[in-house]
Amino acid sequence: MSLFPQILDFIGTFAFAISGIRLASAKRFDWFGAYVVGFVTAIGGGTIRDVLLGVTPGWMTNPIYLICTALALGWVILFGKYLIHLNNTFFIFDSIGLALFTVVGVSKTLSLGYPFWVAIIMGSITGAAGGVIRDVFINEIPLIFRKEIYAVACVLGGIVYTVCHYWGVPELYCQLSGGLTVFVARILAVKYNICLPILNDKSEKHP
Amino acid sequence: MSLFPQILDFIGTFAFAISGIRLASAKRFDWFGAYVVGFVTAIGGGTIRDVLLGVTPGWMTNPIYLICTALALGWVILFGKYLIHLNNTFFIFDSIGLALFTVVGVSKTLSLGYPFWVAIIMGSITGAAGGVIRDVFINEIPLIFRKEIYAVACVLGGIVYTVCHYWGVPELYCQLSGGLTVFVARILAVKYNICLPILNDKSEKHP
Amino acid sequence: MSLFPQILDFIGTFAFAISGIRLASAKRFDWFGAYVVGFVTAIGGGTIRDVLLGVTPGWMTNPIYLICTALALGWVILFGKYLIHLNNTFFIFDSIGLALFTVVGVSKTLSLGYPFWVAIIMGSITGAAGGVIRDVFINEIPLIFRKEIYAVACVLGGIVYTVCHYWGVPELYCQLSGGLTVFVARILAVKYNICLPILNDKSEKHP
Repeated sequence: MSLFPQILDFIGTFAFAISGIRLASAKRFDWFGAYVVGFVTAIGGGTIRDVLLGVTPGWMTNPIYLICTALALGWVILFGKYLIHLNNTFFIFDSIGLALFTVVGVSKTLSLGYPFWVAIIMGSITGAAGGVIRDVFINEIPLIFRKEIYAVACVLGGIVYTVCHYWGVPELYCQLSGGLTVFVARILAVKYNICLPILNDKSEKHP
Repeated sequence: MSLFPQILDFIGTFAFAISGIRLASAKRFDWFGAYVVGFVTAIGGGTIRDVLLGVTPGWMTNPIYLICTALALGWVILFGKYLIHLNNTFFIFDSIGLALFTVVGVSKTLSLGYPFWVAIIMGSITGAAGGVIRDVFINEIPLIFRKEIYAVACVLGGIVYTVCHYWGVPELYCQLSGGLTVFVARILAVKYNICLPILNDKSEKHP
Repeated sequence: MSLFPQILDFIGTFAFAISGIRLASAKRFDWFGAYVVGFVTAIGGGTIRDVLLGVTPGWMTNPIYLICTALALGWVILFGKYLIHLNNTFFIFDSIGLALFTVVGVSKTLSLGYPFWVAIIMGSITGAAGGVIRDVFINEIPLIFRKEIYAVACVLGGIVYTVCHYWGVPELYCQLSGGLTVFVARILAVKYNICLPILNDKSEKHP
């Protein structure tokens, strides 16, 4: 990776780790638990993708994700009570992370020769599955299933990316279009409170 | 795969997806969340099996499972309120799916040269693990651990299959005997309300 | 494996399976559910490690873990009400299991050529991840994130192991030092009630 994507990757990892650490702290996890939840939020999606694709997960070849999560933990420990004023900043960072992770997932899957629908799914898993594991660990129903356009932004970005790819658009522009789609879809969805319809079937209850 | 198993596979996937989508809707998931839960219910078991066996999951080579889940979602959205009258039909479809998924899991594992006990476990994972992930996602204790003969039917079917296999019975008859065992065990268990004993040890509580 | 580590492995597996089965029984799981939870507690950590490392999980090549879990289930069914008097014994067994599983994880990862930080993580996953899956299955927040020095003992043992390894200490002594560190850290932490600080950030709640 060249420098600019690396910086974005660092920002995304940091933002994802912060989101995991803060939700863990609301459940009174200890420092170790918060670190693990932060780390898994950041690398969980990419790890599931790489296991499914049959390649070695990225965090096993580069310690930057461990270090980045440690910095995020230190940040929350030191500045936790001020973080609430930075929610908008973190929302932007988080959306950058979501866009970048999605693009990385789509790109890696296409480069391994998988069909476009697998690439879209892998992009969405890279962006959104870390948050699902986070929510399972803190014993909540995963947020992305009930609220907010989140994974759907990944799906849209993945579609834009793969359409550009099949039109023969140079890879860099595919990545930019895909990433921008994720970012803009997420920002617009939150700004205008766009939700998907709730599926309400009263006929079945979990016994 | 020839046509008849493909139709069974489609029916099983559809029934499993429906079960995931309906439980998701009882928790007020949005359409995207319901789709993901339905998809994971349908392909989760086979995916865990394939990751453990070190092969590429089937849904990454054939989009039929994605399409089938989309049809299941459309069905629930359009006809959700009538589904309650079809519970018996879905129970039959679900049992067909369970039988077929188990047979596919045992067969694939044996053909890769693993010993019989691995094949029985993989058959049970293929049949039952999707429902476990579904229940984790909707934040419930997995149903198969507390109620109903479900995974146990898979285990029985897997035993029948592998015993036939080691007796030299032709593969097709192994599959038929194994699948029928799963199907009949499940039907009988529900009809006669057969349960395993509850393990009740009052000595330990989760703190 | 030679005889002595095999006996330790058996003891560790038995103790981990007992812990899963007892927590499952407190939630009124049936025998099958309790068996599955016990088995996953015992082999879950090693399985995640092996999937991440891209090798076949150990329990797929040796049925001893299945048999050992069956013995643990029989033990709880027959002697469940007396187990409460044996809590100290099981605590020792469980700590032996934790130490041994950690050492196996570190050793296997280093022998595959991964860097030291991956080995420490894999050691901790081998020791602690089975308990995380157990707690997800019984629908509780994983214990190791909130209480007790548990996974942290694995991390300490992994650090001692890899430091010895890079100093050129013979492998057997690396393993002994690493394992003893895990064991002693766990015993001391429980005896003197040593905990990590809780991270308490009131600024964010899961919606």
